[in-house]
Amino acid sequence: MRKWIYGGVLLSMMCWVGLPLRAQHIEPGTTPNRTQKLLMERGYGMFIHFGMNTFLQEEWSDGKASPDTYNPTRLDSGQWVRVAKEAGFRYVLLVTKHHDGFCMWDSRYTDYDVMASPVKVDVVKAVSDACRKYGLKFAVYYSLWDRYEPSYRDTDFCKYIDFMINQLEELFTNYGDICELWFDGAWDKPADDWQFRRLYDKVKEWQPTCAVGINNAIMREEKVDAGGFGMAMPDEMIEGNTMYTRYFPMDFRLADPKIAHKKDCKQVVYKGESYYMPFEHTICLSKRWNWFQKNTPMEVRDLDELEELFYWCTDNGNTLVVNVPPDERGLIRENEADAIIELGRRIGLKRGKPLPRNGEFISLDAPVEATSVWENHPDYTADKAVDGGPTTRWASGILTPELVITLDPSKPFNKVTIFEYQDEQRGADYFTSTRVNRIERYTIDIWKDGAWECIYISDTPMGDCKVIRFPREYRSEKIRLNVLSARDYPSIYEFNVMYKK
Amino acid sequence: MRKWIYGGVLLSMMCWVGLPLRAQHIEPGTTPNRTQKLLMERGYGMFIHFGMNTFLQEEWSDGKASPDTYNPTRLDSGQWVRVAKEAGFRYVLLVTKHHDGFCMWDSRYTDYDVMASPVKVDVVKAVSDACRKYGLKFAVYYSLWDRYEPSYRDTDFCKYIDFMINQLEELFTNYGDICELWFDGAWDKPADDWQFRRLYDKVKEWQPTCAVGINNAIMREEKVDAGGFGMAMPDEMIEGNTMYTRYFPMDFRLADPKIAHKKDCKQVVYKGESYYMPFEHTICLSKRWNWFQKNTPMEVRDLDELEELFYWCTDNGNTLVVNVPPDERGLIRENEADAIIELGRRIGLKRGKPLPRNGEFISLDAPVEATSVWENHPDYTADKAVDGGPTTRWASGILTPELVITLDPSKPFNKVTIFEYQDEQRGADYFTSTRVNRIERYTIDIWKDGAWECIYISDTPMGDCKVIRFPREYRSEKIRLNVLSARDYPSIYEFNVMYKK
Repeated sequence: MRKWIYGGVLLSMMCWVGLPLRAQHIEPGTTPNRTQKLLMERGYGMFIHFGMNTFLQEEWSDGKASPDTYNPTRLDSGQWVRVAKEAGFRYVLLVTKHHDGFCMWDSRYTDYDVMASPVKVDVVKAVSDACRKYGLKFAVYYSLWDRYEPSYRDTDFCKYIDFMINQLEELFTNYGDICELWFDGAWDKPADDWQFRRLYDKVKEWQPTCAVGINNAIMREEKVDAGGFGMAMPDEMIEGNTMYTRYFPMDFRLADPKIAHKKDCKQVVYKGESYYMPFEHTICLSKRWNWFQKNTPMEVRDLDELEELFYWCTDNGNTLVVNVPPDERGLIRENEADAIIELGRRIGLKRGKPLPRNGEFISLDAPVEATSVWENHPDYTADKAVDGGPTTRWASGILTPELVITLDPSKPFNKVTIFEYQDEQRGADYFTSTRVNRIERYTIDIWKDGAWECIYISDTPMGDCKVIRFPREYRSEKIRLNVLSARDYPSIYEFNVMYKK
Repeated sequence: MRKWIYGGVLLSMMCWVGLPLRAQHIEPGTTPNRTQKLLMERGYGMFIHFGMNTFLQEEWSDGKASPDTYNPTRLDSGQWVRVAKEAGFRYVLLVTKHHDGFCMWDSRYTDYDVMASPVKVDVVKAVSDACRKYGLKFAVYYSLWDRYEPSYRDTDFCKYIDFMINQLEELFTNYGDICELWFDGAWDKPADDWQFRRLYDKVKEWQPTCAVGINNAIMREEKVDAGGFGMAMPDEMIEGNTMYTRYFPMDFRLADPKIAHKKDCKQVVYKGESYYMPFEHTICLSKRWNWFQKNTPMEVRDLDELEELFYWCTDNGNTLVVNVPPDERGLIRENEADAIIELGRRIGLKRGKPLPRNGEFISLDAPVEATSVWENHPDYTADKAVDGGPTTRWASGILTPELVITLDPSKPFNKVTIFEYQDEQRGADYFTSTRVNRIERYTIDIWKDGAWECIYISDTPMGDCKVIRFPREYRSEKIRLNVLSARDYPSIYEFNVMYKK
């Protein structure tokens, strides 16, 4: 009996130290490893930014605020996770330390944490416990950039790396399973300074299937600059092995809050080798840039946009994290909870079932013509509206252009989605912005019996994403967006014709 | 054998001439008779305006257009009825003759009908046949006012009454069952001139359970004036026996396109007797006044508004007819067909099943306060927002008022609907208009643990009807509409808090 137990432990230790460990380290290849498969299966997570910034009405505070500033009046991490569960999220991604350096757990390596505040609750423990209780996976965000910790400014940067490893060890050995680690703020130092190999191996030692991602890693050229220069947008990755990661090793890509290409190709190059690397999208539930909650209620994105973003971000093997930040009471606001729960119901998320998928795109890369292209500029041709790229766009040089897409008339469709380019005004705080649609009135028409037939007309602004669901199936050899009036030259990121069961 | 048949026929004739006939004539009472019960069970019909006006871009042409003007290129009445069926309508109400006098059937009593046009299709026959084929009831609209028929202008108006009886006999004896007759245009003559008793008895003779309605009959005082002076709006009928009908007999009330009161009371007075009389609502699918289709596509009402209007109009024993007019090809446009079909799906209309109902209104006549009432005017007090009257309204005298409704905290709710007063600009044609919301940004808050908690926030214009569905049930002792910004003093027709399963 004793021998068997011993044998079991030995076998288990062998697996731990041996096979799975090696398997979980990223290696050159064109298919997901086990860690990546688990990541892709999870697919949909809730991001929780809560901490010092919540009490400062800021996104990036400077680490100088007193711990007394952090003072939630009705902190209830259980509510956060209950909302996550009811909304159909598979995991909760908690900010454990943001750029300000304030730690959300009881860390023995700093005095700048929740235990120094008036509310001495270990939030990492509370959330990880609640995740276990409610059956969700737990993931952590950890800022590399640290505006408080003195060792960060030491001439010997290794001291800060040691500090981080100590803190990560606390996180990875005291709070149960952690499915993902989200590193942020690496742009503040040259890439090699971070010693990612050391950090990565440590994480894998503690938790072999934890997926590690580093924000803003992918570059257009193979170089290791700090900062944003030369950084690739995720929707540029449509051809394998043309983009490089400046941070390595890692298991998945990040570039908040950008959206990847419909035809996202997951091969990135590091030092001459090609790696399979899925992309985790991170977006705000709010209409505005709002990672940390502000002290007045804020509009959330339209459900239509959220639904399309969900599909766009998850149904090509990538993942989506939606930020639902608690307010300074320490509660997720009811209006935000309602929105994200309603989204889960609309999509039909079911525990233990694969994430639902969007319909078949029958207009992707279809032949397309426009009656006008802005200055005949090659960057704004009509094909940009059907290329699956969320940042490339067709732009017109007249107010009332037409966009005509040739379809395969044998293929039915019952849904159209339109992402219109909008004029954006950035707020005084840099992070917030408001957007105004250009198109005022338009029809969607199909070619039928030798004439255009209107199947939809609207004079309501399209907003961030317009979804038109038809109760009947159409088939046609072409479909048209016909702009009837606009307050400025219309431009369309994506016009997608699809069939959704 | 022969004897039994004879007996059967005799019994059947007795019933025909005797009991059912008497039962179907309107009589004083406080409950619906059989005809009215059948009307209320049908509940939801499609109005079809198609005729001379369709080809003139007019609502009321003058009877002088040549029959050649009527020239549909692809007339398909079967399509109209298929759309009606797919949309869940229970009956089709066809305009057989509008004010212009042009008849949609082959009438031997006029030369101004479809048979004199290039497209010699008896539309009444085509539609009534299609209704039988697809299992819908058939109803007819017939204009009393006739701008073509010479006898209408004869000094002896009886000649025109005879003409009408002849035409109605054609309609009621040649096209199978007709469930309703909709008389319009009576305002053009003094009420007694129309000899409604004669018309009504004839109709009942031909078809005993046909329900007869006469547009704009209800008056605030007992008088028989022509024109609109003193006419009661349907939403004024909240107290029994305070309103009078100037036209009699009839089986149901009409006042297009007005909406009745939530607490519509169906008792009207005629010559000292009180009659039970339900109301048939008639509204356009178009956002604008558009009974006859125009030659360019037109926006349809939002599905949210259509859904709420459906419930509002049908779930208190009244009925709703939605106008879905074919265009000059003779086809219902795809965008309109889609909208009305999608509405039926959303509501969950099922053939042979009772019409679905809205939730329980828990805010109806609840105590309510506003931080401002326009000029402290008694017509615009806060209670008008919860009184169930679609034309009475609360109006504020400041830009950012609050409206606070006291609720029964034991009653859950999960839905809020808001009908906001909008500024309306009437188009050059008098009939069309555009509406602009005043409220720009607002929250809905509930009182919870001693503070207001935001459960909804929006900066999207409310449109004609705003519906907020909550994925969870709330209970609270009060609920607040908090206007954060507005372009003019806000005003609310109805703010309804309800529980919908």
